[in-house]
Amino acid sequence: MSDVHHAPHSRAHPPQGIIDEGRRAVDEHIRVVADLVSDVVTFSERVPLGHASGRVTAEAVVSPVDLPLFRNSQMDGFAVIASDVTSVPATLPVTATIAAAPGAPEILGPGAAARIMTGAPVPQGADAIVPVEYTTEGPDGSVVIERTQQSGDYVREPGSDVRAGDELVPAGTLLAPRHLAALAASGIGDVEVVSPLRVVVISSGAELVEPGHPVLPGQVYDANTVALSAALTESGARVVETLRTVDEAEPFRVALARAVAEADLVVTSGGVSKGAFEVVRDVLEPLGADVTEVAMQPGGPQCTAIVEGVPVISFPGNPVSAQVSFAVFLRPVLRRLAGLPPIEPVAVTLTAPVESVAGKRQWLRGVRAGGSVSVVSGPGSHLVAAMAGADCLLDIPEDTTRLDAGATVEVLPL
Amino acid sequence: MSDVHHAPHSRAHPPQGIIDEGRRAVDEHIRVVADLVSDVVTFSERVPLGHASGRVTAEAVVSPVDLPLFRNSQMDGFAVIASDVTSVPATLPVTATIAAAPGAPEILGPGAAARIMTGAPVPQGADAIVPVEYTTEGPDGSVVIERTQQSGDYVREPGSDVRAGDELVPAGTLLAPRHLAALAASGIGDVEVVSPLRVVVISSGAELVEPGHPVLPGQVYDANTVALSAALTESGARVVETLRTVDEAEPFRVALARAVAEADLVVTSGGVSKGAFEVVRDVLEPLGADVTEVAMQPGGPQCTAIVEGVPVISFPGNPVSAQVSFAVFLRPVLRRLAGLPPIEPVAVTLTAPVESVAGKRQWLRGVRAGGSVSVVSGPGSHLVAAMAGADCLLDIPEDTTRLDAGATVEVLPL
Repeated sequence: MSDVHHAPHSRAHPPQGIIDEGRRAVDEHIRVVADLVSDVVTFSERVPLGHASGRVTAEAVVSPVDLPLFRNSQMDGFAVIASDVTSVPATLPVTATIAAAPGAPEILGPGAAARIMTGAPVPQGADAIVPVEYTTEGPDGSVVIERTQQSGDYVREPGSDVRAGDELVPAGTLLAPRHLAALAASGIGDVEVVSPLRVVVISSGAELVEPGHPVLPGQVYDANTVALSAALTESGARVVETLRTVDEAEPFRVALARAVAEADLVVTSGGVSKGAFEVVRDVLEPLGADVTEVAMQPGGPQCTAIVEGVPVISFPGNPVSAQVSFAVFLRPVLRRLAGLPPIEPVAVTLTAPVESVAGKRQWLRGVRAGGSVSVVSGPGSHLVAAMAGADCLLDIPEDTTRLDAGATVEVLPL
Repeated sequence: MSDVHHAPHSRAHPPQGIIDEGRRAVDEHIRVVADLVSDVVTFSERVPLGHASGRVTAEAVVSPVDLPLFRNSQMDGFAVIASDVTSVPATLPVTATIAAAPGAPEILGPGAAARIMTGAPVPQGADAIVPVEYTTEGPDGSVVIERTQQSGDYVREPGSDVRAGDELVPAGTLLAPRHLAALAASGIGDVEVVSPLRVVVISSGAELVEPGHPVLPGQVYDANTVALSAALTESGARVVETLRTVDEAEPFRVALARAVAEADLVVTSGGVSKGAFEVVRDVLEPLGADVTEVAMQPGGPQCTAIVEGVPVISFPGNPVSAQVSFAVFLRPVLRRLAGLPPIEPVAVTLTAPVESVAGKRQWLRGVRAGGSVSVVSGPGSHLVAAMAGADCLLDIPEDTTRLDAGATVEVLPL
């Protein structure tokens, strides 16, 4: 027995506080996952503007036209020839009324004025608009101009907003209403946007039951399918199917084959630990999977693989571990691929001391208020209800065992 | 003529820099719009968890069960009776293997151990788990326990995360993956969420053409339909229809009647100014509309009405004016009704001086970088392409005509 007991990689009695040499650093596993997922070939698709809000441009969009499209009036008022109103008051006959409407207005002759609405085309001949505020009504339908104008006053020139061929929106733009307005104003009816990654989510575990159904003794509700699906969608991916399997190799193999046939990426939860029934690990390891123990808590057991060319990212099954794993490992690369802004860590101040285990980077659940953060849950990876009350993960470094109240800590917003 | 010229509310020659008494303050119009829209009766609807991400709970949700549902193991290891391992090493026969799977395990007898997986039910009789790391294999399939355990060690008790009847998620919660995980883990399959306001968007203007189609002289592309629809959706509303009408009363009346029949709220753009063809104003004013000039730029002409009990909020038609009007007047109340977090103004530093007109609160388009802001567009309300490059509106107070570089200014994020 004692030879087993003292073997270097025995599971027995690791001296307290010493990092197991076999554990991988969190940052290294972040890179492993990012490299795998970054290799996925992303596509783009054309969508009408009405469906483009919140999507990300796959290419720069240039304006096909000058904006404004034509010389138009900045004000409700009168189109005039500026040299006709150098001396005021000046009474001019009103020879036309020009609305913002289809059609080209008649040429404005010398010594005349045309009533004009905001946005309406400035008639040829006219070179200035007199705002209605600076006019009064004259006799016989004429207008009295009360203020001189310079040539060009209150006239919007074509191309003064954007010129044909100029960039309206760069590639990688998360399309907001203001971008859609610019595209629409330029006459663009649809836009090339990044296609979301197609993802299949597999939850493994003989004990899992769909929420809303009765549970038998020993069963628990499957929280990972809905939580990981929502997290993937939030990160710009499209969940095309969710599958749930028991802890037996054959059903998991069937689910996996189906998943890699239709997805760009497969995300699994459960079955990657060191227990006796670790179906994900048991099926993926012979396929060359990278099964590893990451030096973090929760979420230590992790696994990545490529099956039929499709990356498979496997998280542990505890709901808290799965969510933390997603936020730490998968969210950054998915958001980058989707063109979404990164979620950056924020430095805040602890309201109360925290303890942590040596040798593992710990992600405690916390709530921020102003520039400070409070821990809202114990460290247990089963505390899924407690995690609902959190809005961030405190990032407690591997080598830290205690932080005092008032200490600065980085948090990862959820 | 001079009596007209000098009449108190004449449109002629208002002295430069003096606020027209008839103009309404921005904050007052914000209140007018908020009061009208807040009166809309909001409903809730039940959606399955898979469709609840990003929705807002209409009521608090309590857990119908204890979580964990049953006593289960926190580790892969061996279930024991703590008093059997007070002296170690202790060799115990392994009488069962308990997986995380349906079914109740057999009672553990004195002096025995059961191999147990993380999450699996702790057998009756056992009161502690020995993690596998603190065990070695014994003779004849027995286990050698290398470390003593206290009663309760590594056992997750029912209700230690949440108790039946306790609140899982408060009313008004914007549902994120972590909330869905907690609801799912408690067996909840669907959730009551706030129904979005049904909105019809009407764009008026004889000159408007759908993007993607050819324009004739005098026509311009309709940017407001797509931009306001996207802005409404971002603010938690549901655009049920968009209508476009020319500047004639009858078509607008038809559109309006259709809109108020199906919507909780109608938003229009165009036709509220002082020109000769102001169809929205012309139709709504006889119905008791509040047509007003707000002391701001862009977006001065504003109108609100109640038609058949439905609030109608009318913005000017210039695309920049319409977007600024939405962000200033409608977005705050819509987000509040939808349960979305408010978008708060932020104080930043100007990188370059700005000029502004006296008597009007000006919303200049800017881009933030760190704690500073730069203006990215002229003040013209037609500069829709330039606005695409902005990410915030600088809020220049009514009485300010100039701010120097380095001055602090509030910006409203877009």
